[in-house]
Amino acid sequence: MSHKLELVNNCSKTDARAGMLATSHGMVNTPAFMPVASQATVKTLTPEELDSIGTTIIVSNTYHLHLRPGVDIIKNLGGLHEFMRWNGAILTDSGGYQVFSLSPLCKITEEGVTFRSHIDGSEQFLTPEKAVELQEGLGGDIIMPLDVCVTCESDHRTAKEAMEITHRWASRCHCSHQRTDQVLYGIVQGGLHANLRRESAQFLTSLEFSGYAIGGLSLGEQKEVMLSMIEETVQFLPKSKIRYVMGLGSPEDIVESVARGVDLFDSALPTRVARNGAVFSMYGRQNIRNASFKSKDEPIDPNCDCYTCRNFSAAYVHHLMRCEELLAYRLTTIHNLRFVLRLMEQIRQSILNNTFASFRQEFNDHYQPTNEQVRVDQKQKWLRSHRSS
Amino acid sequence: MSHKLELVNNCSKTDARAGMLATSHGMVNTPAFMPVASQATVKTLTPEELDSIGTTIIVSNTYHLHLRPGVDIIKNLGGLHEFMRWNGAILTDSGGYQVFSLSPLCKITEEGVTFRSHIDGSEQFLTPEKAVELQEGLGGDIIMPLDVCVTCESDHRTAKEAMEITHRWASRCHCSHQRTDQVLYGIVQGGLHANLRRESAQFLTSLEFSGYAIGGLSLGEQKEVMLSMIEETVQFLPKSKIRYVMGLGSPEDIVESVARGVDLFDSALPTRVARNGAVFSMYGRQNIRNASFKSKDEPIDPNCDCYTCRNFSAAYVHHLMRCEELLAYRLTTIHNLRFVLRLMEQIRQSILNNTFASFRQEFNDHYQPTNEQVRVDQKQKWLRSHRSS
Repeated sequence: MSHKLELVNNCSKTDARAGMLATSHGMVNTPAFMPVASQATVKTLTPEELDSIGTTIIVSNTYHLHLRPGVDIIKNLGGLHEFMRWNGAILTDSGGYQVFSLSPLCKITEEGVTFRSHIDGSEQFLTPEKAVELQEGLGGDIIMPLDVCVTCESDHRTAKEAMEITHRWASRCHCSHQRTDQVLYGIVQGGLHANLRRESAQFLTSLEFSGYAIGGLSLGEQKEVMLSMIEETVQFLPKSKIRYVMGLGSPEDIVESVARGVDLFDSALPTRVARNGAVFSMYGRQNIRNASFKSKDEPIDPNCDCYTCRNFSAAYVHHLMRCEELLAYRLTTIHNLRFVLRLMEQIRQSILNNTFASFRQEFNDHYQPTNEQVRVDQKQKWLRSHRSS
Repeated sequence: MSHKLELVNNCSKTDARAGMLATSHGMVNTPAFMPVASQATVKTLTPEELDSIGTTIIVSNTYHLHLRPGVDIIKNLGGLHEFMRWNGAILTDSGGYQVFSLSPLCKITEEGVTFRSHIDGSEQFLTPEKAVELQEGLGGDIIMPLDVCVTCESDHRTAKEAMEITHRWASRCHCSHQRTDQVLYGIVQGGLHANLRRESAQFLTSLEFSGYAIGGLSLGEQKEVMLSMIEETVQFLPKSKIRYVMGLGSPEDIVESVARGVDLFDSALPTRVARNGAVFSMYGRQNIRNASFKSKDEPIDPNCDCYTCRNFSAAYVHHLMRCEELLAYRLTTIHNLRFVLRLMEQIRQSILNNTFASFRQEFNDHYQPTNEQVRVDQKQKWLRSHRSS
């Protein structure tokens, strides 16, 4: 088995930890962020560009690839790594979340979930076993069980029922998974209810998965609630395995989650907002479309080492974005992903140096998060719009 | 003066010639094709990518850059080369053609042309002197005079009047141009009337421009008519100067124009059709969206040396294009531009080897041009849609 987490250092003041995760496609230093490649491409970028910004692992999506082009096509072409020419690690999500967020129909039975393709409206049926089979066909290094997501407003009973079926499906996934060059993680559910989160973590831990994801967060709930759910969950997960919060990717949330013992993140946020012109710096987000950049003869961030900042003025990127030129989306995507991946490097280095607590303090002193209400509105607008990643 | 054309070889069977054009930003081997960077970007590509496919000269556009971001902005940022980080040669068009094709208003007087911005509707006034001043601000290596374009249906009288004002404006541009590190070409007009083309070529030659463009072609007229207009014009242009047919870029037209003594081409065609999924090969154009590519485990063109064909299966590019993923547009753009630039290299090599006539024959035997009526319809649809490049 090629999947192994070696913990290199633990922060003495927080629960942050630095590790090295061995996968079938290279080593992943943790804490790590996974750029999102739902449709077998991190939007706008080539594999070489991903590599050049420091990517070691990406996340792709079974729901999207099953519907288009179809897993058989990818399998026959040698699997997902070969198909998209990415030689680093890949985690594939089962598609559970996309079924619930993208499909115009979603009917859950004990056996599985019936849904409609958001592309052609065709009716589809997915079982836990089928989700594993599809992911074995894709050949990612880490795969996820089919789970049932609930909204952040779900009451205790709804969340409990969803959690319980998620558990039974997790067992079925565990039994049906066969490929030895890939590993299966468990996904903790339980909505925003601490006792359910504990129950879910304890049940899944008993099945001995290779790693543990925390699902159903970062869906529009208040940040404090999200962070407390992470705390309530992590304490019941084994120290020796990866803890992965699904769908979480804002810089401030990453820093706080690492402090609570989380190792792995993925989110379309850095790339999605990049295509709207929002660019990250250690002071927060700014929009490159703003008139203040119109004649600015400096990089977006003079301290940034990304391709965009090393080569182009903010005025040029501003111009391209105003013109809706496709190169604009590449340049801001590169910048934002590099910002997040460099942040992960800085976090990890500070854990190794035993300075994470002061790094966290300094980061929080400078970084101005997007206004909470704006953030929640944006997220909910996005969820409604059924975008693909 | 850094602008000099050295003819290296002339074809013994046709009027094709191979040369080396020295510019302020490097040597351009001719015959040459210029990718189109109307808004200071060849759509989807970085300067490094342009370089890697063999680009030595690009064409940009004064109309677009004057309206957005404004020439002063670019000038203050060090000029167009610095702004877009392109260190090769740049030719800037005056914007005459765009005024006539994109503006919702276009009123010509002896003094200049009044038009409306297609972006914000603002009224603009452009004179020949202003067109030169703007291009001096941009700092391209080759600049073009303001001219008056007529449609391919124009009668003799309309075409003659447009030509005559083009001539007077060319003289004014010639007088007002001052920068010594850039050169001004003349633009032959005259519609589809051979005697006007001759008159225009002779008049402009008398002003001794550094090179000669042939404008007002490839606008929807029949190919035979276009080629005969090129013949009628080229014979009256000096052998020692560049002949440049503006807006011509289909592979079959390039080969036939080279045979008639043309040295320089530009067209948005290879990049525009790429974004619609059309990919070139020596057999013609195919659309990568076609179901035949769905599971094809081979490059788009196994004989192609471009980044796309060296790295990805046709099935992957097909998938990206079907998903409307932005990477698709990059990959097809790279492929098509590399196809055209490699065609230019093959043409040039065959002229140097004295085998151009057989190369031309072989090319025409294999290459299936896009159906004439489809082509004309597409072009006219595009002209109507007022797209930006």
